[in-house]
Amino acid sequence: MKVMLIKNTSLGQLIKGRLDDLADSSSGEYIWRPSFSEEYMKAAELLRTWLAEEGFMVYVDPVGNIFGRIEGETDRVALFGSHLDTVKDGGKYDGAAGIVTSMTAISRTVKRLGKPRKSIEVVALVEEEGSRFLSSYTGSKAIMDKIGFDNLSETDSDGISICEAIRNAGLDGWNEEAFAKTARSDIDSFVELHIEQGPILENKGLDIGVVTSIVGLCSYYVTIRGKQNHAGTTPMSMRLDPVAAASEFIVGMTEYTKAVSDTAVFTVGGIHAYPGISNVIADSVKLELDFRDGVGGALDEIRAELRQQAECLEAQGFDVDIDIRCDEDPVSLDPGIVDMIDDSVRECGLKYMRMNSGAGHDSQIFADKVPTGMIFIPSHDGISHSPLEFTPEEDLARGEMVLEKVIEKLAY
Amino acid sequence: MKVMLIKNTSLGQLIKGRLDDLADSSSGEYIWRPSFSEEYMKAAELLRTWLAEEGFMVYVDPVGNIFGRIEGETDRVALFGSHLDTVKDGGKYDGAAGIVTSMTAISRTVKRLGKPRKSIEVVALVEEEGSRFLSSYTGSKAIMDKIGFDNLSETDSDGISICEAIRNAGLDGWNEEAFAKTARSDIDSFVELHIEQGPILENKGLDIGVVTSIVGLCSYYVTIRGKQNHAGTTPMSMRLDPVAAASEFIVGMTEYTKAVSDTAVFTVGGIHAYPGISNVIADSVKLELDFRDGVGGALDEIRAELRQQAECLEAQGFDVDIDIRCDEDPVSLDPGIVDMIDDSVRECGLKYMRMNSGAGHDSQIFADKVPTGMIFIPSHDGISHSPLEFTPEEDLARGEMVLEKVIEKLAY
Repeated sequence: MKVMLIKNTSLGQLIKGRLDDLADSSSGEYIWRPSFSEEYMKAAELLRTWLAEEGFMVYVDPVGNIFGRIEGETDRVALFGSHLDTVKDGGKYDGAAGIVTSMTAISRTVKRLGKPRKSIEVVALVEEEGSRFLSSYTGSKAIMDKIGFDNLSETDSDGISICEAIRNAGLDGWNEEAFAKTARSDIDSFVELHIEQGPILENKGLDIGVVTSIVGLCSYYVTIRGKQNHAGTTPMSMRLDPVAAASEFIVGMTEYTKAVSDTAVFTVGGIHAYPGISNVIADSVKLELDFRDGVGGALDEIRAELRQQAECLEAQGFDVDIDIRCDEDPVSLDPGIVDMIDDSVRECGLKYMRMNSGAGHDSQIFADKVPTGMIFIPSHDGISHSPLEFTPEEDLARGEMVLEKVIEKLAY
Repeated sequence: MKVMLIKNTSLGQLIKGRLDDLADSSSGEYIWRPSFSEEYMKAAELLRTWLAEEGFMVYVDPVGNIFGRIEGETDRVALFGSHLDTVKDGGKYDGAAGIVTSMTAISRTVKRLGKPRKSIEVVALVEEEGSRFLSSYTGSKAIMDKIGFDNLSETDSDGISICEAIRNAGLDGWNEEAFAKTARSDIDSFVELHIEQGPILENKGLDIGVVTSIVGLCSYYVTIRGKQNHAGTTPMSMRLDPVAAASEFIVGMTEYTKAVSDTAVFTVGGIHAYPGISNVIADSVKLELDFRDGVGGALDEIRAELRQQAECLEAQGFDVDIDIRCDEDPVSLDPGIVDMIDDSVRECGLKYMRMNSGAGHDSQIFADKVPTGMIFIPSHDGISHSPLEFTPEEDLARGEMVLEKVIEKLAY
């Protein structure tokens, strides 16, 4: 493991060095830090060491969220941070970039301005990704009182429950009574810096994305049933071919989505024809699709168009089943904090845009209870959830600079 | 097993009864007569008994084709028949209808008109379907000298070769010397009656299809590679989504095929997206497609259009691979025999149309060496290769009547 000589490095190098060190806690070629795993606990220990060195008061809450606190004149808290877990074969930046930049920005701001008016905390949240358990956002949901103790009996693929995993990781004090103390009512704001995980900022040559909403996510399985028949002997005019129908549906929904909104996305990621043989007109096709848009976008219109296109197929003789796996409305981030981030970016002289977050984040768990904001920094080529994830040092440093301004506004 | 009282039944009932009896040779709920299986040999034995009873000289050639012969004034042969094997979970009519109607028509014609000028034979061809071995048309290819002894070392899924299967079935005389005698040069014509296996005749309210050509069959795997990406964070304008591209390709090829020919068909029966997850823009899509058209149709135009649409996708940034599994040109049937069947149908006062065969048949193996014709009778709902396969008794009888006229023209 590298030891960073903080004084001899630039801000970007410092942050990048710490991200490299956290990544080194994963053995093997790829990064994978499922919650409470050996790799995760190594990274957590490293983080606790850094926080202590930088003068934070360090503590771990009963679900395993790691906090570093700078005491202010009041007990009210301005919270910053992101998640520490990663998906399998993930990258160095997703989650970790938000923790390291926040820690660095708080430390530098306090050194610069002294004791803050509000207390300031940085948090490394646990199990945002569903990296080990099926549920996600476990850390933020526990803090925001959105899960009960019962939710923590969920088991991983080896049959180990969240409770057991926490105990196995050597974290103590874990029981129902302790869990009840996880929920916090002293938090005044939450700001999360995160990599964009998309190509927009890089493509537009911008430094910062000021997130105004986290998109609503609709994940549907759509099954279209036609009439199975011989591919050679059934004339085109006498077919009820679900593959041809599904293709028209995908083309239609794609065109509609592009036309109705600049920000909405529509994706068919999975497509299966049954029985799936080249010389048989299929009986049915199953589409696994996903569409999203932010607050004020076209999510309702796309939902309605999808149903209308399904009805249109039924009128032609197809049977269409829509199985709704997930149908979440978009989440607005706090307009006051959004404006504050805007101002901060401008004060730093950086180029930015307001944008939606296309992916889900812990911020959406905080947003309905606590004024919440998000800062995006560019992802090279838009790649994320991959070892190829990359954000240049300068972009990490620019994000940290914006965070310093926001900390100053929120806590001083 | 039923014993049919021939004298007390109508022609349609007689044919239907024999088809039922052949089907009864399959145990269990579904019909499955893979070549040389116990079920197949039971049906073969039944057929040999009927042929002998009807006055045919019965013999089996070295590959297992069963012949019934009526000696004429010359040794030149007018051959009729179809295949005896069936696909798994197949129907009563596919193949068997041609054998039983031909046997019946020859027998009745000879009773009516006496000794023919040419010798007349009915044949029950082996392994047309690839029902047991991967290769198909084994029986007709052996007769037309289109396979060698080496081809018969191909094994079934249990590792049993065609040679062994023939020996295990109790057929003797099987060796290279015997095989050399399978090829025939005494055949002057081949006429095959077959169920349509499609819906055209029934939909148009016609009795008979006079087949003019057997369609050329192109079976391709088309793989379209785009750029895998996050379904939530990648704007529609920055995607290279192979599912969306494949859908446009399918819609485009379907529309083109409909526009360019009334007889051509284009089918995507299999479609697979990789990695195939709803929230990931796919890396690639594999299409398993099939297109066909008859002689004088638009097969060349469709081949060219497919390549042009693939090039169009490549110009957009996709990679497209075309893996040609099969690319066969259509086969013309003999115009003289086609006219002769036309005349025969009109003499019977039946309604008919000329048409292509959308499926492959033994006739295409005979057609380049021997004047060949095909007679289609209706398939209810166009269903075939299914236990639901059905052709009414009256249609079986109408087909037999046409065959009698054709036999008269070809052999008297």
